[in-house]
Amino acid sequence: MRMTQLASARNNTLTAQMKKIARDEHMSPTLLLKRIRQGLIVVPCNNTRTLAAPCGIGCGLRTKVNANIGTSTEHPDIREEIQKLAIAIKAGADAVMDLSVGGDLARTRTEIIKHAGVPVGTVPVYEMASRALNKKGSMLDFDAQDMLACLHEQASQGVDFFTIHSGITKKSIAAVKKSKRLMPIVSRGGAILANWVITRKKENPFYEYFDAILAICKAYDVTISLGDGLRPGSVLDATDLAQITELKILGALCARARKKGVQVMVEGPGHVPLGQIQKNIELEKKICGGAPFYVLGPLVTDVAPGYDHITSAIGGALAASYGADFLCYVTPAEHLRHPSGEDVKEGVIASRIAAHAADIVKGVPGALAWDKKMSLARKQRDWKKQIRLALDPEKAQAYRSSSIPQAKDVCTMCGNYCSMKLMEECLGK
Amino acid sequence: MRMTQLASARNNTLTAQMKKIARDEHMSPTLLLKRIRQGLIVVPCNNTRTLAAPCGIGCGLRTKVNANIGTSTEHPDIREEIQKLAIAIKAGADAVMDLSVGGDLARTRTEIIKHAGVPVGTVPVYEMASRALNKKGSMLDFDAQDMLACLHEQASQGVDFFTIHSGITKKSIAAVKKSKRLMPIVSRGGAILANWVITRKKENPFYEYFDAILAICKAYDVTISLGDGLRPGSVLDATDLAQITELKILGALCARARKKGVQVMVEGPGHVPLGQIQKNIELEKKICGGAPFYVLGPLVTDVAPGYDHITSAIGGALAASYGADFLCYVTPAEHLRHPSGEDVKEGVIASRIAAHAADIVKGVPGALAWDKKMSLARKQRDWKKQIRLALDPEKAQAYRSSSIPQAKDVCTMCGNYCSMKLMEECLGK
Repeated sequence: MRMTQLASARNNTLTAQMKKIARDEHMSPTLLLKRIRQGLIVVPCNNTRTLAAPCGIGCGLRTKVNANIGTSTEHPDIREEIQKLAIAIKAGADAVMDLSVGGDLARTRTEIIKHAGVPVGTVPVYEMASRALNKKGSMLDFDAQDMLACLHEQASQGVDFFTIHSGITKKSIAAVKKSKRLMPIVSRGGAILANWVITRKKENPFYEYFDAILAICKAYDVTISLGDGLRPGSVLDATDLAQITELKILGALCARARKKGVQVMVEGPGHVPLGQIQKNIELEKKICGGAPFYVLGPLVTDVAPGYDHITSAIGGALAASYGADFLCYVTPAEHLRHPSGEDVKEGVIASRIAAHAADIVKGVPGALAWDKKMSLARKQRDWKKQIRLALDPEKAQAYRSSSIPQAKDVCTMCGNYCSMKLMEECLGK
Repeated sequence: MRMTQLASARNNTLTAQMKKIARDEHMSPTLLLKRIRQGLIVVPCNNTRTLAAPCGIGCGLRTKVNANIGTSTEHPDIREEIQKLAIAIKAGADAVMDLSVGGDLARTRTEIIKHAGVPVGTVPVYEMASRALNKKGSMLDFDAQDMLACLHEQASQGVDFFTIHSGITKKSIAAVKKSKRLMPIVSRGGAILANWVITRKKENPFYEYFDAILAICKAYDVTISLGDGLRPGSVLDATDLAQITELKILGALCARARKKGVQVMVEGPGHVPLGQIQKNIELEKKICGGAPFYVLGPLVTDVAPGYDHITSAIGGALAASYGADFLCYVTPAEHLRHPSGEDVKEGVIASRIAAHAADIVKGVPGALAWDKKMSLARKQRDWKKQIRLALDPEKAQAYRSSSIPQAKDVCTMCGNYCSMKLMEECLGK
């Protein structure tokens, strides 16, 4: 099997993935290698796979977008999820996660991996819980051996990154009880493991056997994404004792992962008021030694079910502008139902808008140039160019086609009152 | 005719509108009166009207949302616009502007005013240009007399606030030329007036006859909204010399309006990168003596036509969290076509999300309490309550109804893997 990305970087050797990333992102190979060595950038790519579209996540790179897909118990149809995968990729997702909990999990996963040219992540505790439920009647009926077997199997199938909920420990669960939050745990994986710890009165195997997990991840070059099982699920719970207690645990685990040669990123909130987002990014960067920050949202209010792609685009744009590296999309279906293909598209696009708005501020190479091209096309009233340059050309074209003006160089909003046209008449082109 | 709101405040007398606002917004009448006197809050309400839903705009109040409606030359149908008005109000718009430029402008306006229980604003230069075009063949063939006649007519019809582009002057136009922006002027009214100034080689009548405008506004208690004709239309043009030159002119005009007893607010950008929004709000507040700030967006990127309700929700949330008081919605149709009723709804909802996310941060009374209620309903898996509390109950219900789970207390995303349910089983209710 291939040398890991991190081992290559430590050896000062560019992998094929790194070459592509350096070229696509206009980052010098030297700087890319350095940042991978420092743990500031990760390249999730299982060493049994050669990704068509590998991606780097972290400092100085374009903000990336992840789309969650996967079956639910009520929607166990693999084909639907493969369709959603195609929709997500077409809409521009840089990575996907298979969060399946219904139907044939192994087959769903291997199909998704087969069809995805982008990195694929999973949350292995879902499969552990699902197996336990199906075989033994309780989703908590698993042990450390089951965990390691599941991780090994998934790694050998080609998973590129694992969400590992090692921050749910006796200590952080005590902090949940102490913090009197409105919603104790809203992470599915977090809730399963907290339940396990509380009912078994034993430490979380993801924490206790972290070194064994690292060994598997190193063998297959699976990047670890340290899950935030205690992310706030209400803006009223943001940045509380429970969340910070877990973050500190994750910070220590980051250091252990790097020491063992495993790439690591950190997952973050969640539901966070606008005014606390900067602080959240700064804390993660400080506590986790600059590890790439992978945020879910953040959703800046709880009151807009049906529009959580928007509440999270607001939070995600702000988070990324302050340094978050990887945005997990949220769809309009969040809090309401298993997402449809259309929901997936809406979610990816909203997150890409957030990511790009932040990349302008981050000074990511090429970001502002895109806006410049669009502004010039708009000024010139070159509609073909405007549509080609649009983040979602299909929707832009559909809007344009639905309402064609008499004068073809304007739109039906302003007609000949078009300010571009008026100014051209008076100042020239 | 009634005493103006500002005169009443100076007389320390609460108007019916102020009483309602103080009650609805949990602000002490004394503080409300003080802030109106100081010009920090405006209450747009023509003194020939009694609004069913008056609103206060400014410091300490809920962030308000405006919806632009109105005919275009290609869509001159009054009924369509009255339908959009109903949609906007139902979706929660606090004010509307009639930006008609097509068909029978006076009838459209009077119909909108008749049907609107919320304040109605207009941009009088549109009617001046339209009349000139229809009667004399050029939209620039108007003079100061025509302007004052138009303002008087509209004020007497009951318009509650006027966008007045007095900041387009010889001086600010020179700044446009000097600043070499990508897109010189993207404001429709701004472009008409700049054209007028450049071709006539005379000063803008909205600037030159500002005192006469104030006299009309005072007589009918029309609030002035000083238009930002030089707002940036590309993120690359934000916060440039042209924009700031105009803002300084508006600042001086604010002082003159207050001195003459006319309520005044200030319009703002536009297309602005995330990182410049705070500075923009601070500048306006400083230069305009704390006048309520009415922002159009801001749109944080230029590249997402079809989704500018999202690009502007991102900017609007941030702007309002820093102190902007009034968000002008942007619809998904922006830059592409005359908006449909559905576009209007999407625009209002996106702006309301932005406004509410900011109100949480501003500490507006009742804002966080709404999120708390929703979070508790979510924790209790009380779906009726969640939907009732949703910012758009219709959409939330449609999503829920489209995908009913077997176990009625969860949703089809997680089914029995619902974290709320798992935690309740383990920690109790």
